[in-house]
Amino acid sequence: MANQDLRVGIIGVGMMGADHAERVVHRTAGARLVAVSDPDTARAEALAAGFDGVRTITDPLALIADDEVDAVIIASPGFVHEEQVSACLERGKFALCEKPLTMDAESALRLVEAEARLERPLIQVGFMRRFDPEYAAMKELLDGGELGRTLVVHNVHRNKAVPPSFRSEMIVRDSLVHEVDVCRWLFGEEIDEITVLAPAPTSAAAEGVLDPQVAIFRMAGGGMATTEVFVNCQVGYEVRCEAVAERGNVTIGLGQSVFVRQDGRYGGDVPDDFRSRFGRAYDLELQAWADATRRGEVVGPTAWDGYAASAVCEAGMESLASGRPVTVGLVDRASVVGATR
Amino acid sequence: MANQDLRVGIIGVGMMGADHAERVVHRTAGARLVAVSDPDTARAEALAAGFDGVRTITDPLALIADDEVDAVIIASPGFVHEEQVSACLERGKFALCEKPLTMDAESALRLVEAEARLERPLIQVGFMRRFDPEYAAMKELLDGGELGRTLVVHNVHRNKAVPPSFRSEMIVRDSLVHEVDVCRWLFGEEIDEITVLAPAPTSAAAEGVLDPQVAIFRMAGGGMATTEVFVNCQVGYEVRCEAVAERGNVTIGLGQSVFVRQDGRYGGDVPDDFRSRFGRAYDLELQAWADATRRGEVVGPTAWDGYAASAVCEAGMESLASGRPVTVGLVDRASVVGATR
Amino acid sequence: MANQDLRVGIIGVGMMGADHAERVVHRTAGARLVAVSDPDTARAEALAAGFDGVRTITDPLALIADDEVDAVIIASPGFVHEEQVSACLERGKFALCEKPLTMDAESALRLVEAEARLERPLIQVGFMRRFDPEYAAMKELLDGGELGRTLVVHNVHRNKAVPPSFRSEMIVRDSLVHEVDVCRWLFGEEIDEITVLAPAPTSAAAEGVLDPQVAIFRMAGGGMATTEVFVNCQVGYEVRCEAVAERGNVTIGLGQSVFVRQDGRYGGDVPDDFRSRFGRAYDLELQAWADATRRGEVVGPTAWDGYAASAVCEAGMESLASGRPVTVGLVDRASVVGATR
Amino acid sequence: MANQDLRVGIIGVGMMGADHAERVVHRTAGARLVAVSDPDTARAEALAAGFDGVRTITDPLALIADDEVDAVIIASPGFVHEEQVSACLERGKFALCEKPLTMDAESALRLVEAEARLERPLIQVGFMRRFDPEYAAMKELLDGGELGRTLVVHNVHRNKAVPPSFRSEMIVRDSLVHEVDVCRWLFGEEIDEITVLAPAPTSAAAEGVLDPQVAIFRMAGGGMATTEVFVNCQVGYEVRCEAVAERGNVTIGLGQSVFVRQDGRYGGDVPDDFRSRFGRAYDLELQAWADATRRGEVVGPTAWDGYAASAVCEAGMESLASGRPVTVGLVDRASVVGATR
Repeated sequence: MANQDLRVGIIGVGMMGADHAERVVHRTAGARLVAVSDPDTARAEALAAGFDGVRTITDPLALIADDEVDAVIIASPGFVHEEQVSACLERGKFALCEKPLTMDAESALRLVEAEARLERPLIQVGFMRRFDPEYAAMKELLDGGELGRTLVVHNVHRNKAVPPSFRSEMIVRDSLVHEVDVCRWLFGEEIDEITVLAPAPTSAAAEGVLDPQVAIFRMAGGGMATTEVFVNCQVGYEVRCEAVAERGNVTIGLGQSVFVRQDGRYGGDVPDDFRSRFGRAYDLELQAWADATRRGEVVGPTAWDGYAASAVCEAGMESLASGRPVTVGLVDRASVVGATR
Repeated sequence: MANQDLRVGIIGVGMMGADHAERVVHRTAGARLVAVSDPDTARAEALAAGFDGVRTITDPLALIADDEVDAVIIASPGFVHEEQVSACLERGKFALCEKPLTMDAESALRLVEAEARLERPLIQVGFMRRFDPEYAAMKELLDGGELGRTLVVHNVHRNKAVPPSFRSEMIVRDSLVHEVDVCRWLFGEEIDEITVLAPAPTSAAAEGVLDPQVAIFRMAGGGMATTEVFVNCQVGYEVRCEAVAERGNVTIGLGQSVFVRQDGRYGGDVPDDFRSRFGRAYDLELQAWADATRRGEVVGPTAWDGYAASAVCEAGMESLASGRPVTVGLVDRASVVGATR
Repeated sequence: MANQDLRVGIIGVGMMGADHAERVVHRTAGARLVAVSDPDTARAEALAAGFDGVRTITDPLALIADDEVDAVIIASPGFVHEEQVSACLERGKFALCEKPLTMDAESALRLVEAEARLERPLIQVGFMRRFDPEYAAMKELLDGGELGRTLVVHNVHRNKAVPPSFRSEMIVRDSLVHEVDVCRWLFGEEIDEITVLAPAPTSAAAEGVLDPQVAIFRMAGGGMATTEVFVNCQVGYEVRCEAVAERGNVTIGLGQSVFVRQDGRYGGDVPDDFRSRFGRAYDLELQAWADATRRGEVVGPTAWDGYAASAVCEAGMESLASGRPVTVGLVDRASVVGATR
Repeated sequence: MANQDLRVGIIGVGMMGADHAERVVHRTAGARLVAVSDPDTARAEALAAGFDGVRTITDPLALIADDEVDAVIIASPGFVHEEQVSACLERGKFALCEKPLTMDAESALRLVEAEARLERPLIQVGFMRRFDPEYAAMKELLDGGELGRTLVVHNVHRNKAVPPSFRSEMIVRDSLVHEVDVCRWLFGEEIDEITVLAPAPTSAAAEGVLDPQVAIFRMAGGGMATTEVFVNCQVGYEVRCEAVAERGNVTIGLGQSVFVRQDGRYGGDVPDDFRSRFGRAYDLELQAWADATRRGEVVGPTAWDGYAASAVCEAGMESLASGRPVTVGLVDRASVVGATR
């Protein structure tokens, strides 16, 4: 397949899927969009009409099975992920599945087990921060060893505002999940224990919603991480990360590229949302996924990463309810995926 | 007294006391150093000889009692503070007492009670960060109300290295105590509960020393604070603070004044120790203390602040040992110092 | 052509051409590398062997004439540009020509005239800074009008070091030429007058080389620009630009994405060379060129921009020799390319 | 005198003189304000009434002659400086004279000559930037030699707005004069040649006023400096300086101490005027002046510095009128002040 363009199908063409369609067509080398699927057929057709040679296939499982489709991007709602990822595994199709992998750790584990029975891994989970140039540089610096062992990581993750329907647990499951993946990846270790604390909420949050929240992770190797998640911060989309190692520390997300002085103030723009902040990361994620897929490999976050993140978030939601530390009970990785993967 | 210079005596002329002597003589308007006292008489005499008209008085209580001394700076070791502060209260002498006010919350409370029986307060405790221009600007901004209520505060407090004799509890008592005061002051509330957690320690720490540590404060009004204290960070002296409010956030301590590009790197110096970082804060603290004392007032951190900080740190040391949240049991303030002070 | 991949040929596979080959193959959507040409046949073959389906064509004019080649990237030495660009114009092939367009303003003007006789423009000149996200954001901000008219632009352009063969005039022709284009583009006006001044040279420069240099541009509309070019600055590759407008100013190039504190210093890396600083700009330039070419358009810097830059640099070299302001005598644009282009 | 407070008289209690009065009384150790003088007697009396023990003396020459006055701060309008400084020299009184030293280079030179005939220097000129911690750190770094010889200096000097009465030449004489002193001091060399250029003016400037202006200095040792002065920049008070040396460069004035994120923007305040930006520099200047005066020395900018700055500004105003470089014709320093001073 390496000599030919990768033929991509996309399931779900809401905001995220439509973005990915643009990405595949206009910003990814060696990939071609051939089919899209969405329960909202009109939406799928409107999107397909904007490109050359893109078919709509109503049934997502038919898209997965389609001979012309080499690989699938799953951007549908989380509750259909398990079925769609399973279908990809059955058909031997590579898939990039947006997070969450599934709706709970148990079902995610079933996918991990199913994939483990195959000859090679097929699933990449859409934790795109690993492809952000700043996070990637930080990881490289930490892995380089010059700063010594990583001891503590501090994260800040803030959204300008969320709809009133956004509930307290979604802060853990949909927002904090990114830091769960980031910390697992930066430390190269699982999270053993999570505590999620809630200070008195902002008046900008809907009645009863605990926002902001402060989470503490204890890593398997003894490291620790703090994360503030604040989804109604009013300012903009702020994501920062500081890793503190034995001989120095690294911070990303200070974001000072275009510096304006005006009206008695210096500074610049805080991005409005994750698409402007991480647009480049998504582009790089897709290019890396297309490149790896053409080589028959998975290089990004794996199904295991999707499972582990779910398990940590479930423990986090329990901690948010109880206010106490909760142990994360992951199954033994080697016994599921084997020692060599 | 307002028309005349304030005549100052200093007890203890180690590093801190000697610095204060320089400050009084060379950088404080309206103050005059008249006497110093130190158990190491030679050291006191050497210091006195460097200035004009400064006597040495061997007995610190005699210095406090001396008619020529209007006000006293107590820079002696903590275990003699209670006796010396008591003497100041008895003699009606204003005093600036370096932290800790005393060695434990119980004795600190005795001083609070003794002062409360006087006509007016006399004691200021040396939490100099309140006088740092950056912290002061942050406090002013938060109090201005434009950003709304303060929800969360994040602190980082790192020293380059400490001697091997520095033990785990000292990280709470001697380092974290500054953030205890900062958070009480920024929120304008007491700390209700403290948790001190210890990640796997850096290899740069002495055997058995838990360094770094991560502390969580719950404020009386529901706010929350996180603090990383790391006394062997190898980099330099790093103190940063971010206050997150309902409509915006403020960060200080990023410290980019002189910006150098050299050898493939841009950046600047991280201060070596607290004296370079907070030298200006000490100068401003002393000027403010001298000015207020000449007016017969106390404007900085009070004896109560010294007591409350001790009580929080005691709870913090208990939490460090147990790994669990510990409630801070302060006595009722109004019942001790009255409602009007 | 819009429905199919753009088939690209590259002439010259030295450092720049080889980079472009990588870009076309691995980072450009909708483009395919089909042929390369280089006088060093072995180098061309080695490069072609690294990709699928790329032919080598020894004669660059044959590559241009090849039916399988839709568009050409000219990355050969400047002295063969005139012949190769002419051939593209004759064959009606779109071309992205690395700067300089030709070796002097006179020959560049001949290309402008030749292209003007065609039905549509075909030539884009490789001033890639216009595609750099920071420069692009600055341009957008200035054009948005909120800051008012641009009055003065300050540029800094520094290289770590150049080989001893790099002569004083090359600083004008090969380095300053980028700021010539940037200022023409930001102001949207021609440069009327240029002065190039030489302070006492750095000891790091080769004997007789005037490095650094300071250039002053007077724009046709009365604006002004200062530029420091310093090609042996020892630090790294530093490119900064500040535009001062009537109601505010914008600075780019401060570059603080990954922030490290280590060994008593805070800061980050200064890029080593233009490839790391402007790698992304090159990627975006190629994507935009491929997209526009498939639509039959030219959207980047034009042949006229190449001509005007040459004319300014010629005046600049004259000024460097004389130490005096030199007027830039451009031909009348409308009389050459017409009023509608 | 070293054992006693320096008794200071201030001539001129407009904004600057009143600020200095505050400084002497409340922020300068070892100094005492004893007398003030102002043609507006009511203003002088109102100010004196705000302090203890300050007399008003209507005649400034009487203040200078007064036995109780050890040293004089001259904050009167520039056109009376020559007479008042002369009186100080005659009476052997130390003086801190706000810039300009006098109204032209010729009269300034007469003061230099008069002072040279005395046993020791008495005059310090109020170029306070030398006492600003950032400028001082930059000077120390450059003098340290690690970065090699200084090659080029770039300055930016912007005011929010000036009254309509502010004319083009005042930009040179009252604003640019600070960079004249800064460059002479940083390079440790005289300015040999100055060019002052005027881009098309901002619409915020009064009719006929050339604002902004761009000045080029050629230093005696071959170094060069560029300075943009813009007195109606609308933003705030911006002063930045970058020194480019053979092995690195230093920038000051980026000013990021309190960092706020709010309303989609990150950043901080640009100071409103020179008093907030350089308030600390004035404090340090006065303390250093008081300390040196008590020791019988002059440590800051000298009468010669005042003369040289005037001479450069006169040449600058000539260049502004002609648009051409103008040579600065300083008298031979050694022949006037001797080789040993």
